[in-house]
Amino acid sequence: MFVVHVFVDVKSEAVDAFKEATAENAACSRQEPGIARFDVVQECEDPTRFVLVEVYRTRADTLRHKETDHYQKWRDTVESMMASLRRSIKFVNISPDDNGWDSV
Amino acid sequence: MFVVHVFVDVKSEAVDAFKEATAENAACSRQEPGIARFDVVQECEDPTRFVLVEVYRTRADTLRHKETDHYQKWRDTVESMMASLRRSIKFVNISPDDNGWDSV
Repeated sequence: MFVVHVFVDVKSEAVDAFKEATAENAACSRQEPGIARFDVVQECEDPTRFVLVEVYRTRADTLRHKETDHYQKWRDTVESMMASLRRSIKFVNISPDDNGWDSV
Repeated sequence: MFVVHVFVDVKSEAVDAFKEATAENAACSRQEPGIARFDVVQECEDPTRFVLVEVYRTRADTLRHKETDHYQKWRDTVESMMASLRRSIKFVNISPDDNGWDSV
């Protein structure tokens, strides 16, 4: 699997709107065949900080994701909500192996 | 859910041993009733950097995890493998809701 953690710092007045737009994008993204997981978490200590945990089956699936309507809508919707440019870090899975990522 | 990301920097000569010990701990941890996911990923750009993505049902389940034999064995085994003290960040889930985390 090819795992991407996306770090987003949100303007405090935009937190609720960001959560709504990002949950919608996550639900749509989970329907993509190339995506095993697409989780969104909010930091306890600083609720303006979010991480998107995106688990793709292959690197090519990251490109397909960026072509979808839901991604492009999300990207445009949240652009003005971000307090700084978002950053990402790329990973490979050690555990579980490729079979252990899909949800019930 | 209560989500913890644990960041571990490993000495380069200990990467293989760390992967083995950490995969074993992850597999055991996924058997705990209080744990929905326990994923281990390795950074592409710097393979000495790892993140443990731990998804607990409640905060109390993090304490139960630390009482297990497999956690204590892992903690002791990897202590000398780490290049620096490990750090963690705590999160709550935005998406999916509490029902969407368990694996197939």
